[in-house]
Amino acid sequence: MMRFATLMKHPADWMTSGDSETSVVLTSRVRLARNLAGASYPGWARKNERKEVLSKVQAVVKDLPGMQNGFLCELSDLESLQKQVLVERHLISREQAARNEGSAAVINRKQSLSLMINEEDHLRIQAIQPSLNLEKAYRLAHQVDQELEKKLCFAFDAKWGYLTACPTNLGTGMRASAMLHLPGLVLNEQIGQVLKGVGKLGLAVRGLYGEGTESLGNLYQISNQSTLGESEQDILRHLTKVIGDISRYEQQARQRLLKNEPVMLKDRVGRAAGILTHAQIISSKEALNHLSMLRLGADLEIFSTSLQEVCDRLFMGTQPAHLQWAAEKKLEPEARDILRAQMIRDQLHSILPPAIDISE
Amino acid sequence: MMRFATLMKHPADWMTSGDSETSVVLTSRVRLARNLAGASYPGWARKNERKEVLSKVQAVVKDLPGMQNGFLCELSDLESLQKQVLVERHLISREQAARNEGSAAVINRKQSLSLMINEEDHLRIQAIQPSLNLEKAYRLAHQVDQELEKKLCFAFDAKWGYLTACPTNLGTGMRASAMLHLPGLVLNEQIGQVLKGVGKLGLAVRGLYGEGTESLGNLYQISNQSTLGESEQDILRHLTKVIGDISRYEQQARQRLLKNEPVMLKDRVGRAAGILTHAQIISSKEALNHLSMLRLGADLEIFSTSLQEVCDRLFMGTQPAHLQWAAEKKLEPEARDILRAQMIRDQLHSILPPAIDISE
Repeated sequence: MMRFATLMKHPADWMTSGDSETSVVLTSRVRLARNLAGASYPGWARKNERKEVLSKVQAVVKDLPGMQNGFLCELSDLESLQKQVLVERHLISREQAARNEGSAAVINRKQSLSLMINEEDHLRIQAIQPSLNLEKAYRLAHQVDQELEKKLCFAFDAKWGYLTACPTNLGTGMRASAMLHLPGLVLNEQIGQVLKGVGKLGLAVRGLYGEGTESLGNLYQISNQSTLGESEQDILRHLTKVIGDISRYEQQARQRLLKNEPVMLKDRVGRAAGILTHAQIISSKEALNHLSMLRLGADLEIFSTSLQEVCDRLFMGTQPAHLQWAAEKKLEPEARDILRAQMIRDQLHSILPPAIDISE
Repeated sequence: MMRFATLMKHPADWMTSGDSETSVVLTSRVRLARNLAGASYPGWARKNERKEVLSKVQAVVKDLPGMQNGFLCELSDLESLQKQVLVERHLISREQAARNEGSAAVINRKQSLSLMINEEDHLRIQAIQPSLNLEKAYRLAHQVDQELEKKLCFAFDAKWGYLTACPTNLGTGMRASAMLHLPGLVLNEQIGQVLKGVGKLGLAVRGLYGEGTESLGNLYQISNQSTLGESEQDILRHLTKVIGDISRYEQQARQRLLKNEPVMLKDRVGRAAGILTHAQIISSKEALNHLSMLRLGADLEIFSTSLQEVCDRLFMGTQPAHLQWAAEKKLEPEARDILRAQMIRDQLHSILPPAIDISE
């Protein structure tokens, strides 16, 4: 199995696609919730029961074909900074990061597959893909699910489907979601209407870090609400259609801005470039918002399109835990804000040199 | 006499001193209020009386040694844009700009002397000098006053001194003021305390355009409140001392920032440079605030000191009327904001080239 540092040495597979298709839909994710028949759910299992489930699942997971040379670690063996890095990378949930002994994370080498053992359910199987590709993400998660089902007995009811700790996951146990970058709809002030429409279609909209988090950097997560009464394929098809529609609205919004409000658009992306190339102190939140504008400028070829990749790298790399991981130490918020500004200036330098270098 | 366009072709003498002394105190101004004995004050004079006063004063003013080849114009003959330019250049007051027939402005070639006829008083004599030099400004105004007194009979009372339309000017009729740039005290959050102290010393603090205007670009006007019971020399000495003290506090604040908070300081001046070199739309207010930071960066040699002069030129040139005068037409606010951003980028370009030129 792989060391944590080795895992972090490379970006996840889905972080570097560079696909022009990803200019609106950045990533697609599917996760399946599964539980072992006859065992208490983690939330009310005693420690020993949780450990028993963990060792049962762990033994099977290790042999999965997709998990060769992957990363496997009990949460109690991870430092809080490491946990936070995995959360920022969407490889484990915030809930899982809060757990310790008896809970584990398993991640494949490409970071396209991750398994959470003893999160809310005994097992959560997650697959991430770049761009809008929920079908493929589902296929990968489903493969793991099938492999595991050969050796584990999942709690399943003929009428209700997969049984889960929380009734909102009952049935398919599937939550499919995509991360969308919607600066055009935000600038056009159409975002409220679009998100309202999404809600009416029975889908959920969330911020960058899932439930209860605010939207930063014009990033929105759209996912299915219901897991019951529809097949996985129906859910994926519906979601793919809606996200495809939103992606087209976003593209139209951008073209409209370019045509009708070119100066406003250039002002917004220009200011973002000006601030990011000159700031000496910048919060994670402010950085995300300016990076969003920079990414938009690159998508629209106002800037060099080579900035797309830099922006995506910085979207992730400027997050608090990633930043501290790169610095190889814990940093106070103020020191982080200084390092973040420096990292951004450094990474933009070859494409966007500052008017003046004042950082000594 | 000179045409308006000729007057505007050159900056005022006090706008281009380039003196390093002017890094805190930008300009010094003195104005004397005078009225003709036996004539009603302009505020309650009938039109004919005002015209009579105007022609009397005008005849004398034309022959003043300092006014040779100057500019002389009745307010009714100026377009509103021209009036506004003179206000922005502090050559006439906002009150005078609101007047028409029967009121006039007289300005010397160097724009260091201006006379307002039939403003609140029959005559206001104003002299402007760069840097902290209230004595010299007073000397210039006083010379004009003495020349005029040879030919005009001013309303003067042995006990009260010069009689004025408003009792707050009674006595010396003198208002002396300096324009201070105090970004260091603002960043250090000491400004409130300093201004409170100024008030306790019997002096008044105002924003960029005098009474009732807010402080923009960290610019503050400090002037004497009382005109009665003290000699001109005493008033000037007191004011010069207080302004000298504030100037030193400001210098100390800047050095403290440079020593104790270099990153914050560089962040603020860096962001200003980033925004000014990249914005495509910018309001007068926002421009002033960023130019203030840029000027501070130049004063502290974080940027090339050659930016000082550019900043001072832009402080004036980005004002709404100056901008429209340069464009040779009236512009809607939005068009002004676009032109202002372009003017700033153009004038900064040789010293601070943008990371990317996106203005087409």
